[in-house]
Amino acid sequence: MTSFVHSFSAPGTPDRDQLGGKGAELARMVQLGLPVPPGFTITTAACRHVFEHGTRPAGLTGDIEHHLALLEEETGRRLGDGEQPLLVSVRSGAASSMPGMMDTVLDIGLNDETVAALARVTGDDRFAWDCYRRLVQMFGETVLGVPAERFGELVAAVVAEHGAEDLAGVGADGLRDLVERGDALCREVAGRSLPQDPREQLDLAIDAVFASWHGERARLYRSRFGIPDHLGTAVNVQAMVFGNRGAASGSGVAFTRDPATGDLGDYGEYLPDAQGEDVVSGTRTAVPMARLRELDRPTYHQLRAIMGTLERHYRDLCDIEFTVEDGRLWILQTRVGKRSPAAAFRIAADLVEEGMITEDEALVRVSGEQLTQLMFPQLDAGSAGPPAAAGLAASPGAAAGRVVLDNATAVAMAARGEDVVLVRPETRADDLPGMVAARAVVTARGGRTSHAAVVARGMGLPAVCGIEGLEIDLTTRQVTLAGRPVFAEGDVVSVDGGTGRVYCGHHRTVPAEVTRWLEGENVESPLVSAVARLLAHADRTRRVGVRANAETGHDVERAVRFGAEGVGLVRTEHMFLGDRRTYVERVLIGSDAEREDALRELHALQRESFAVLLAAAGGRPVTIRLLDAPFHEFLPDLTELAVCAATAQVRGNPNQALEDRLAAVRRHHEENPMTGLRGVRLSILRPELVVAQASAAFEAAADLRDRGCPCDLELMVPLVSSAQELAVVARSVAQAADDVAARRGRVPYRLGTMVETPRAAVTAGPLAQRADFLSFGTNDLTQLTWGLSRDDAERSFLPRYLDDGVLRSSPFTTIDEEGVGRLVGLAVDEARASRPGIPVGVCGEHAGDPASIGFLAGLGVSYLSCSPFRVPVARLEAGRAAVLAEGCPADRFDELAAPIPATAG
Amino acid sequence: MTSFVHSFSAPGTPDRDQLGGKGAELARMVQLGLPVPPGFTITTAACRHVFEHGTRPAGLTGDIEHHLALLEEETGRRLGDGEQPLLVSVRSGAASSMPGMMDTVLDIGLNDETVAALARVTGDDRFAWDCYRRLVQMFGETVLGVPAERFGELVAAVVAEHGAEDLAGVGADGLRDLVERGDALCREVAGRSLPQDPREQLDLAIDAVFASWHGERARLYRSRFGIPDHLGTAVNVQAMVFGNRGAASGSGVAFTRDPATGDLGDYGEYLPDAQGEDVVSGTRTAVPMARLRELDRPTYHQLRAIMGTLERHYRDLCDIEFTVEDGRLWILQTRVGKRSPAAAFRIAADLVEEGMITEDEALVRVSGEQLTQLMFPQLDAGSAGPPAAAGLAASPGAAAGRVVLDNATAVAMAARGEDVVLVRPETRADDLPGMVAARAVVTARGGRTSHAAVVARGMGLPAVCGIEGLEIDLTTRQVTLAGRPVFAEGDVVSVDGGTGRVYCGHHRTVPAEVTRWLEGENVESPLVSAVARLLAHADRTRRVGVRANAETGHDVERAVRFGAEGVGLVRTEHMFLGDRRTYVERVLIGSDAEREDALRELHALQRESFAVLLAAAGGRPVTIRLLDAPFHEFLPDLTELAVCAATAQVRGNPNQALEDRLAAVRRHHEENPMTGLRGVRLSILRPELVVAQASAAFEAAADLRDRGCPCDLELMVPLVSSAQELAVVARSVAQAADDVAARRGRVPYRLGTMVETPRAAVTAGPLAQRADFLSFGTNDLTQLTWGLSRDDAERSFLPRYLDDGVLRSSPFTTIDEEGVGRLVGLAVDEARASRPGIPVGVCGEHAGDPASIGFLAGLGVSYLSCSPFRVPVARLEAGRAAVLAEGCPADRFDELAAPIPATAG
Repeated sequence: MTSFVHSFSAPGTPDRDQLGGKGAELARMVQLGLPVPPGFTITTAACRHVFEHGTRPAGLTGDIEHHLALLEEETGRRLGDGEQPLLVSVRSGAASSMPGMMDTVLDIGLNDETVAALARVTGDDRFAWDCYRRLVQMFGETVLGVPAERFGELVAAVVAEHGAEDLAGVGADGLRDLVERGDALCREVAGRSLPQDPREQLDLAIDAVFASWHGERARLYRSRFGIPDHLGTAVNVQAMVFGNRGAASGSGVAFTRDPATGDLGDYGEYLPDAQGEDVVSGTRTAVPMARLRELDRPTYHQLRAIMGTLERHYRDLCDIEFTVEDGRLWILQTRVGKRSPAAAFRIAADLVEEGMITEDEALVRVSGEQLTQLMFPQLDAGSAGPPAAAGLAASPGAAAGRVVLDNATAVAMAARGEDVVLVRPETRADDLPGMVAARAVVTARGGRTSHAAVVARGMGLPAVCGIEGLEIDLTTRQVTLAGRPVFAEGDVVSVDGGTGRVYCGHHRTVPAEVTRWLEGENVESPLVSAVARLLAHADRTRRVGVRANAETGHDVERAVRFGAEGVGLVRTEHMFLGDRRTYVERVLIGSDAEREDALRELHALQRESFAVLLAAAGGRPVTIRLLDAPFHEFLPDLTELAVCAATAQVRGNPNQALEDRLAAVRRHHEENPMTGLRGVRLSILRPELVVAQASAAFEAAADLRDRGCPCDLELMVPLVSSAQELAVVARSVAQAADDVAARRGRVPYRLGTMVETPRAAVTAGPLAQRADFLSFGTNDLTQLTWGLSRDDAERSFLPRYLDDGVLRSSPFTTIDEEGVGRLVGLAVDEARASRPGIPVGVCGEHAGDPASIGFLAGLGVSYLSCSPFRVPVARLEAGRAAVLAEGCPADRFDELAAPIPATAG
Repeated sequence: MTSFVHSFSAPGTPDRDQLGGKGAELARMVQLGLPVPPGFTITTAACRHVFEHGTRPAGLTGDIEHHLALLEEETGRRLGDGEQPLLVSVRSGAASSMPGMMDTVLDIGLNDETVAALARVTGDDRFAWDCYRRLVQMFGETVLGVPAERFGELVAAVVAEHGAEDLAGVGADGLRDLVERGDALCREVAGRSLPQDPREQLDLAIDAVFASWHGERARLYRSRFGIPDHLGTAVNVQAMVFGNRGAASGSGVAFTRDPATGDLGDYGEYLPDAQGEDVVSGTRTAVPMARLRELDRPTYHQLRAIMGTLERHYRDLCDIEFTVEDGRLWILQTRVGKRSPAAAFRIAADLVEEGMITEDEALVRVSGEQLTQLMFPQLDAGSAGPPAAAGLAASPGAAAGRVVLDNATAVAMAARGEDVVLVRPETRADDLPGMVAARAVVTARGGRTSHAAVVARGMGLPAVCGIEGLEIDLTTRQVTLAGRPVFAEGDVVSVDGGTGRVYCGHHRTVPAEVTRWLEGENVESPLVSAVARLLAHADRTRRVGVRANAETGHDVERAVRFGAEGVGLVRTEHMFLGDRRTYVERVLIGSDAEREDALRELHALQRESFAVLLAAAGGRPVTIRLLDAPFHEFLPDLTELAVCAATAQVRGNPNQALEDRLAAVRRHHEENPMTGLRGVRLSILRPELVVAQASAAFEAAADLRDRGCPCDLELMVPLVSSAQELAVVARSVAQAADDVAARRGRVPYRLGTMVETPRAAVTAGPLAQRADFLSFGTNDLTQLTWGLSRDDAERSFLPRYLDDGVLRSSPFTTIDEEGVGRLVGLAVDEARASRPGIPVGVCGEHAGDPASIGFLAGLGVSYLSCSPFRVPVARLEAGRAAVLAEGCPADRFDELAAPIPATAG
């Protein structure tokens, strides 16, 4: 039977599952010969036994006794000893990092007797009583369950009674008073006080740490990060060391490289005569690491040597907590250091250069999310004052411009060369022209998954969403916040989508050097070199193609510069928003004559647009999707129209044209347009629309051919659910192809289908028989698989779902692997079985989501098609996915996956 | 190498795939020793060879030559002979019946010479020329492609020139004239006339029959009935016999039993001195079979003996075509006879009684569709005059009542004991109270799959839908058809949902004896005995349970009488329609105080309703589904409200209450309510609603227990997509259970989930871990799997899809096996793998659809839950499915699957 307790100095590879992360790292550092305060770890197996049986396993108490004796021997101190008292800390440490989620008790071993001994040994009465009052408080909260605020009230009372500003101004007597009153509080609330027997303190603390695994916060954290509930935590018992024993003592934090930039050098802070928590709390100002060199040269050089050892061991940036006690250096903790996105790229590339890691390893140490951060411009923090309004950081980047409150104004002002910021209650598909014209978007309603946020992220447009209390008055053209005016249409504001803040006035933005380089500018910097190196490796490694979704020549050109290998999705309905909506309206509900005219104009417009796109793609494949949008997006709003007509009538000015239009709109009104007459259904009901679009594409391709330009044309049918539907549209397309061929010669094309209904996914086999390629529209597929309308869900229940942990992330942001992902996987397999080698792409938003790309690549799709801005991200993530699929270990980097702090060091 | 031609008298079991249905039956009758005009069959293999190679296979022409010689020898006549000419018919005959879809040419062998011989032999000049002109016409149309209407014009001209009323009044000379002019028409249109060489006539006719396989109609028929395109047809060449050679000749049709009632006896018609087509065309009045006994006793007895032989052979009702030529009886065709629903049950039960078939065989010879027909009352055909309006026969049954034009009036009048007929432009969910109150429903818009049709069929309510040109004026309370008034509110009309007709005035309806018996009345009749016998056998055989969907005690009682084993679905939202909608409105968008009040009232109402349901179920399981309806169904219409508010303002009477309500409705307005805030989402956002409903159910159960009544309670959560959602609701339900338990003692219950989103289907494994049972809602599952909103689809593209053959049937009527069915199958398997033995039901409309039940039963579901009226149908179909799954042959009964004629015999 293995022991339930392991000394930090036990031989053998530390087992993270048994010892937890902290215990394993402490043992590893001891093995590396580093000066670690001695101690031992009680295993997760012991914790699980307690959970399962309600009692400690046989032998555990004896094991603790044994290791405690070894610890006393090693330190030369004894728990509860009146001369040389041993103090220990008791800390949790699970196999997966759960920072701050479980309990800690420090200074165990103090009682009314040992506190005097500690005062004597340290020569610091106040320090000893401060340690004691901390123990009373931590033990009271953690073990006895006394509410923290009750201790807070006590501290406030004592501070007040001593006429001090805070506890630092209270002397030993006051702290002694606090210990007594804290103890009384424990008796009052919990019916008992801190045990005077240090052995009992230790046992109760260990049990409390075990129990904290099932605490509310810990449970929530696990459910959020998918950590199984049954694992349990290890417990570390470690001798206390003190950095506050005078001038030859101190505490600090050090990084082996600059976590903000990745530069080599001394980074960190040191605080003489202080404990670690003083460094963290910032009550006293720490000094840079370089000062340690002056204060204590031998310790500084020892620390530098240790940093080198650790970095070589971990082959990564390390973050070290250390304490100097009476001139002796102790390492308390080491972990892989958090870093800024720029530092992540720099460090990964530098470590390759230094021969410490391979390019594959470097690739998995950076992420698409980090690359995204590096591509957005940012507001110059120095120049901006307090923000005028703050909401959700919905889409990163920064921009300034004049406030506009509607689409038409935005488009008009942008056409005059003005920078504009679109401010709307919320956005919908029809706001797209305004968003395209704007430099930034601000909305009053909607979360990080709202239309505005999602579209803005896709476009690389800064956005601040969900500013509570923001009201937009379209009559006065004023914007108010909680009733008070903040700005009016025409005012200049600056928007920082990375922080969610909106400032009055124009503030400087700093363009991102990575983006300038991607755009083709000649930028030389260590960061750009690092990004270039890792992107190039990703391109060599990845097995999935990257295309872009684009509707303008400008976007296609940018996508190609950013590395896109084609255009995977041209949403032709995007060419008919704003004023152009009427073309489609006339085709759909106009008279025969109106329809004919509109079709002719639509054909001409599309022919020109397609030619521009095909030319910009320079022979790379371009996938033009037939018109797909809910019917109502092309028609006027029914309620608005009904109100107009009714009020006109009441006013005695009945308007027959208005009434006719209202009747037509009412006739075509749909209860659920998302699942109504759209996509292939419209194509079947209005084959003339298919013919117009397809022949426009064929003519555009013929025009290009005649000009000697290469061109690779694909047409795609949306919202298909059955092979029969596809067959009907294929006939219309073939008819258009024959017509154009008769006049211009035959133009080669491939005809494919979207897979965006669950039925298309489960019948992908038969569909593949009729299609030249398939492309997943994971956005609609997600809506239908979950049975939820994205816009409605984001306005009602989705935020609650995310808050309550019913969902870990919005399925529209990151692909739902278990549901939608399963349908995609099944469809890929069956399509390939039915027609080996058929190209299968993904053109939904997930194709550009860093957290989804690896999963999608793993399903074996042929290419991903995302917004141009996301193309480099997709390239990088696709490369990472390939490396990870080869088994390159990523599990040690769980710290890297945690949120990146704004700036560290 | 097998021959491409088989004589009818060839030995061996006839191969239907090679000989086609008609050829195989002719050969079988020859083998039974029946007098069949001799002939031979050219196989489907020959036809396929022609399709594949464009020419006849080597040897085919020789084979035909050979068999023609045998035929001439057997008949003593020769093709083209100037004394004893042989005439033959050339008929198609595919393996699967395709009645009337392909071509036939009769009287081949006639030319200018043989027509004279035929006249001599028959002694009937007019008859010979009539045969000849038929040949010219049929050959012209079929082989030469002359349009039928051109011959029609010719006939009309000749009839007019001879001053006759129709062709029967035209003599031999006129017919000779018609032959000449028909021949000229052929030359004009096709460039050639009927060949004078009978051998050439035969060859061309055979090739034309082959070619007719690819005709437009045949192709459409195959695509509709799923017959593969490559099979091809056989061709039968048979000696002509003539029933019009005088008093000792004649033709007739006979049934071995009465196809209308199933009674034993002589059924059929005989027409002396006539050809078969004269019997069918009805130009002369046929006499009943009994007359043949007087006219020609030996032939009558010979026919009776043959009928016995055939019925013993086919072990089923046979339909026989025969001809008497000069006292000699010829059997031309036999097939399994079509029959009325009543006859189907009678004959199946009688054949069991007579020891001819087993009960299993009897069960597969009847269908749920037939049973449905037997359950509806019908309008007494005799008493009704011409209909006032006609539309689609949307839901069978008949009823009379006063016209009402809105729900409130319907409910109010019904409450006064009046029979009412609800007449609406179309219906939606909110019309349900009116439909419940009505005896019949009539709508101006909507097809057989519209809301009105579907709900009416579910309720067993007669409905006529889609009456074109019907306008309902709610101001004048008048209903007009194409602008002319037909009836006004308050007028009495009679509705026949089985024929789609609406009559003015009250006409008698005949209640169905089967329904009276099912309702518990003591009805003794051969039909009821037959139905009872087969239903009992179905109950013994079926492996799937049958429950009912019901919301009232009355419906539950009826369901139990009809054989339901429980209530599989209580749609609690149905308890809050009409006036009661405001309870839910107040809970959803009311102030805190309004919400509290509404919840209390809702709880009291539901407690009472649930107690009634549970009591009526008498201890059988009752599955109460938590509130599920799109949010907007409980709120006022946004457009109507906006118009009211705007016009009030313009009129100078602004109404603040109205404005507030409008603002609230606008705030909660959803673009796509079907996929919006409903089902489990509402339960999570408003847990108080779950608590109110669940505690009402628990209190109702406790009330029953206190009264000593048995009770088996299930609660079900709608629209679940993930196990997390279910877990959240389970907590609210457990809370309600604990609360009630504290006051009343614990009430046992099971908590299950609907599977109606595709995600629920693909994650049925994890869901089964958290649910006591699963129940498929195939209606929503169909909407989401196809990505189509039923109401919108039925108003726009679904009719076109059905017309164009993109869909064979509406997926809302009959389950889409390939898509939705696959998801159901996958979910059943994975739920059972995850939790063996977990009950899995189906409570969507498909559970009551005869065409879907077999498929669903085959997937291994535990029970089907359908409307009470469909319970007997589900029992019967579930029994059939079990028998068919055991391999009981059903393929010989393809004729039975064809539409049943109104009345035969």
